[in-house]
Amino acid sequence: MPHPNDPSLRSFIEVDPASDFPIQNLPYGVFSTADGRAPRLGVAIGDYVLDLWEIEQDGLISAGDPGTFAGGLNALMHLGPKVWSKTRARISELLRHDNPELRDNQQLRSRALVPMRDARLHLPFTVSGYTDFYSSKEHATNVGVMFRGKDNALQPNWLHMPIAYNGRASTVVVSGTKVKRPRGQLKPPNVELPSFAPCKRLDFELEMGVVIGQPSPMGGMLSEQQAEEMIFGFVLLNDWSARDIQQWEYVPLGPFLAKAFATSISPWVVTREALEPFRLKGPEQEPAPLDYLRQTKPQNYDIALDVSLRAAGTNAPASISRTNFKYMYWSSVQQLMHHASSGCAMNVGDLLGSGTISGPEKEQRGSLLEISWNGTEPVELPGGAKRSFLDDGDSLVMRGWCQGNGYRVGFGEVEGTILAAE
Amino acid sequence: MPHPNDPSLRSFIEVDPASDFPIQNLPYGVFSTADGRAPRLGVAIGDYVLDLWEIEQDGLISAGDPGTFAGGLNALMHLGPKVWSKTRARISELLRHDNPELRDNQQLRSRALVPMRDARLHLPFTVSGYTDFYSSKEHATNVGVMFRGKDNALQPNWLHMPIAYNGRASTVVVSGTKVKRPRGQLKPPNVELPSFAPCKRLDFELEMGVVIGQPSPMGGMLSEQQAEEMIFGFVLLNDWSARDIQQWEYVPLGPFLAKAFATSISPWVVTREALEPFRLKGPEQEPAPLDYLRQTKPQNYDIALDVSLRAAGTNAPASISRTNFKYMYWSSVQQLMHHASSGCAMNVGDLLGSGTISGPEKEQRGSLLEISWNGTEPVELPGGAKRSFLDDGDSLVMRGWCQGNGYRVGFGEVEGTILAAE
Repeated sequence: MPHPNDPSLRSFIEVDPASDFPIQNLPYGVFSTADGRAPRLGVAIGDYVLDLWEIEQDGLISAGDPGTFAGGLNALMHLGPKVWSKTRARISELLRHDNPELRDNQQLRSRALVPMRDARLHLPFTVSGYTDFYSSKEHATNVGVMFRGKDNALQPNWLHMPIAYNGRASTVVVSGTKVKRPRGQLKPPNVELPSFAPCKRLDFELEMGVVIGQPSPMGGMLSEQQAEEMIFGFVLLNDWSARDIQQWEYVPLGPFLAKAFATSISPWVVTREALEPFRLKGPEQEPAPLDYLRQTKPQNYDIALDVSLRAAGTNAPASISRTNFKYMYWSSVQQLMHHASSGCAMNVGDLLGSGTISGPEKEQRGSLLEISWNGTEPVELPGGAKRSFLDDGDSLVMRGWCQGNGYRVGFGEVEGTILAAE
Repeated sequence: MPHPNDPSLRSFIEVDPASDFPIQNLPYGVFSTADGRAPRLGVAIGDYVLDLWEIEQDGLISAGDPGTFAGGLNALMHLGPKVWSKTRARISELLRHDNPELRDNQQLRSRALVPMRDARLHLPFTVSGYTDFYSSKEHATNVGVMFRGKDNALQPNWLHMPIAYNGRASTVVVSGTKVKRPRGQLKPPNVELPSFAPCKRLDFELEMGVVIGQPSPMGGMLSEQQAEEMIFGFVLLNDWSARDIQQWEYVPLGPFLAKAFATSISPWVVTREALEPFRLKGPEQEPAPLDYLRQTKPQNYDIALDVSLRAAGTNAPASISRTNFKYMYWSSVQQLMHHASSGCAMNVGDLLGSGTISGPEKEQRGSLLEISWNGTEPVELPGGAKRSFLDDGDSLVMRGWCQGNGYRVGFGEVEGTILAAE
């Protein structure tokens, strides 16, 4: 049987070469339809969602535990990497152009293949804990230059460990969820006292999110292989940020409410296995990481990323950033090894944000803070709009994909539109 | 019917006046016994645990939903403050000396009243999110004086908002759980490069934890009354801290692994209602808080707190701190109003640490960092041991209680013993 990543595989479902969801991808999501049935697990294939619960009922697939596909992704993740691989291989087999099992079962096809436009997509898994890293050297340097000058841009600890803070899991939401402009304490440097008001410097942060699929015990540490095998997959992640709230609140305990009002993720979780062909070595790490952070395999991924902004009242989204996940200084595996290193238990459903992904070039900056250089160089949009930060009604879309030979392994998109504060 | 807080109430169970668990308290916990049955909800009364699941089976109590008492506290919390009050009133009624329902039912008593020494106590609720505040002015000042000098002790934002960071929920554990000394990156100021090694400056932090019993929606804000009604109860909390890991990692995103290896809480959740007679006004707040943080009722509590340390190899615990929860500058209600103010959704089972509770006097300091003044004044223990920070084998116990007239509403204790790093 060919490997599910085999570029020569074809499905009996027509898939456009520009689609994010060929048979080589098979990302998982949670969807429902207008019939009022509960959300269930599906896989994206071209313009369709394959309803895994339906095909489980017909006996075409089983993950061992009945009901694994009845809700969010956590149940499947609990079963571990061998089951993940077997399940993906079976889905691939069922979708192949030369397999009649599903292809020729018209009655099942009509139940189990749901046009994407009819599917409502939900948060794909229950988020246990959310941790946000700060692992792009270019991003950390840009921010450092802006606020501390060129000579002290990187903090002394930055090259020695993947810096992170605990984020707020309760407000991780799926793409399409409207984001209300947060209110908070603002105290610009030229003002004596803080006031409580709607944020004036609302920003996005382009990130990838790692979905942890296996637990690790309190008090334990992780090898590179253990960490890698705990990673179920990846999503696009927008770490919405209120820069003015952050600036006033964050000393000395870090970002809190400035990041707690919303974090948006893409509805499709692309498996680590599907990304395997796009693995590459990350930037040289100098100084060499301490032993507990050392990795022997290439642990970065070649994922093209694009951010586009549709200004309120216009119909023309404009690309404002084009970068790549491969630039990350600290890999997801290193982030996870670091996270567990003090004895911190990891849980199924933990989400690790990569940190804002900026690249070496100006057009590769992953936040408006950097793109507008702290508001001094507003970005110009089609129709004459200018933005230093986000306005009410603005809509932001992030996309990501790995370009194969004649096909794409893509993430779809994560979209969010800003609502006015009340 | 008398109110369950009535000081004149007596139970048919004998309760020592020095006990933490008279009929006026009735704290909730999750316990199991040696018979192998699943952990279930109980209430502490004197030296017994009342098995709520057993008395539900016998039809003596119901919270509306069958099975509410079959597991952790989250199910009861979900039902809301009216059910909390009714349930507590019914438990009080069943335990009264003049009520024969349970008192005279020997068969049920033998099943439902478990001697405390036979009960194994578990984490009382599933922790959804853990947030740790920094709300004692004396603690923040002590730390500030140590690291920044007297003139810049309090950060500029401190008097304007309850400063906090998101903690790690996955390692919140119940009293009695051993705490393994964490490893992490250490870089003392006099050394060029960090190394990965067991923490050398392991500390405790004396805190109270607020247990959130009702949710609030993303994008919403909370009035004083709404915030207060969401609070189910309180626990003792030890925010174990690795000072050396913290010192190197925390700029600019705050504490992360230094606090992620363990947070211990007491097994008994004392309800907000039971604390009502011990409510008092907190310290004067100057400048006056912004409107969204304003409180019209006394929102502090008079809870005596004691920390004792039993040095490894000795049998003599010594009290090293005696303070009171009433000193907190920002109240739990203000913390919760602040937490939700940016639109952050709160969940049933969220845990808010108060921050280290220090008082104005030297013997009221709530951490070894302060007690030993950053290691310069080691504390002397019985038998000649000295401690600036915690040694392997040391055992730390926190206790808390409200002193009524002839009775105590107490929290029991939260204990933790340090294991060597592997």
